Amino acid sequence: MGNSEVLTRLRAFVEARDWAQFHSEENLAKSISIESAELLECFQWSGDADVTRVREELADVLTYAYLLADKLGVDAENLILEKLEQTEEKYPVNKARGNSAKYDQL
Amino acid sequence: MGNSEVLTRLRAFVEARDWAQFHSEENLAKSISIESAELLECFQWSGDADVTRVREELADVLTYAYLLADKLGVDAENLILEKLEQTEEKYPVNKARGNSAKYDQL
Amino acid sequence: MGNSEVLTRLRAFVEARDWAQFHSEENLAKSISIESAELLECFQWSGDADVTRVREELADVLTYAYLLADKLGVDAENLILEKLEQTEEKYPVNKARGNSAKYDQL
Amino acid sequence: MGNSEVLTRLRAFVEARDWAQFHSEENLAKSISIESAELLECFQWSGDADVTRVREELADVLTYAYLLADKLGVDAENLILEKLEQTEEKYPVNKARGNSAKYDQL
Repeated sequence: MGNSEVLTRLRAFVEARDWAQFHSEENLAKSISIESAELLECFQWSGDADVTRVREELADVLTYAYLLADKLGVDAENLILEKLEQTEEKYPVNKARGNSAKYDQL
Repeated sequence: MGNSEVLTRLRAFVEARDWAQFHSEENLAKSISIESAELLECFQWSGDADVTRVREELADVLTYAYLLADKLGVDAENLILEKLEQTEEKYPVNKARGNSAKYDQL
Repeated sequence: MGNSEVLTRLRAFVEARDWAQFHSEENLAKSISIESAELLECFQWSGDADVTRVREELADVLTYAYLLADKLGVDAENLILEKLEQTEEKYPVNKARGNSAKYDQL
Repeated sequence: MGNSEVLTRLRAFVEARDWAQFHSEENLAKSISIESAELLECFQWSGDADVTRVREELADVLTYAYLLADKLGVDAENLILEKLEQTEEKYPVNKARGNSAKYDQL
């Protein structure tokens, strides 16, 4: 799964700057929250956001998410697929169709 | 870039539940923030988190991030690579090495 | 409860700028998340943060939280006290003492 | 400023549970972000949220914000008022009126 080019490039970027020392799991989790809020800021006062900014902030979220997945020794796209199987069971089609309620309120 | 299987599976999951109606860019951005905070909650009182929970919450962040990328018509891994080029310029190795300061304070 | 000066000043500030139109409950909730992440950013790479910045970001969180409370027609400090009664029951002293676990895991 | 009852009650609550050991500035900042996202979750798919839940989640944000202010040795309502003076200068009425743009784009 996944394209090894992304990991190769991300690892080289971090190594060249000697930044692995800052990338504890906790710091990466904080960083994902911080970048997610910058993404949310594109939509702070309106649903109509600047696309270029949205792409850049989403890229930052994805970058830290990939770094955390790599730190955990898992493939980011595999994580998505594994979780999707659980979510498919939690939200069976016949109950969840057209419904945005949480699984425990379906 | 990226593995088309993930997108194929995510799109089928959403379509079977008729959930595209809820997935505005803004709602996906909110969802990424919400899931990021659930990931952060694994580290609320300590840096030593339960790995299974961390993987599950990270999977949720990645899932919504992929859905937003797909909504924007861009490939998630391409986004990372494009942004990385900008970040490499903002944080030149000779200034950023071993330093966690923001680019405007290097 | 609370000091009416804060509300008087906040309302005058908003009214002078005609900003009530932007302050839906949802937009205020997004704003609280955005400002919380700026507060978190003070601690992104270390627990040792710049106090002036922390105070400013905390002030922003509090400001939006007060505006949302006012929008809901409730007093911010009363909200804290009401919730505290619930939390005291959820976390009885004999079980919660010295323990950071969530109430459902005590 | 502020009502001393809130601080008295919050401090007693924390002390009875011996929780000050968990309340580093950083952990409180994380907690504010986590609770802010639970507040945001009330609005995940729609601007029309359950008022009881909104009040409860806002109370949690306020509680941790007050605990952090207390940890910093500052009064929460004073913080709001001090920051308001800065914000009034950053957003002069003649430029900011009816405009949700950020100060550097006014």
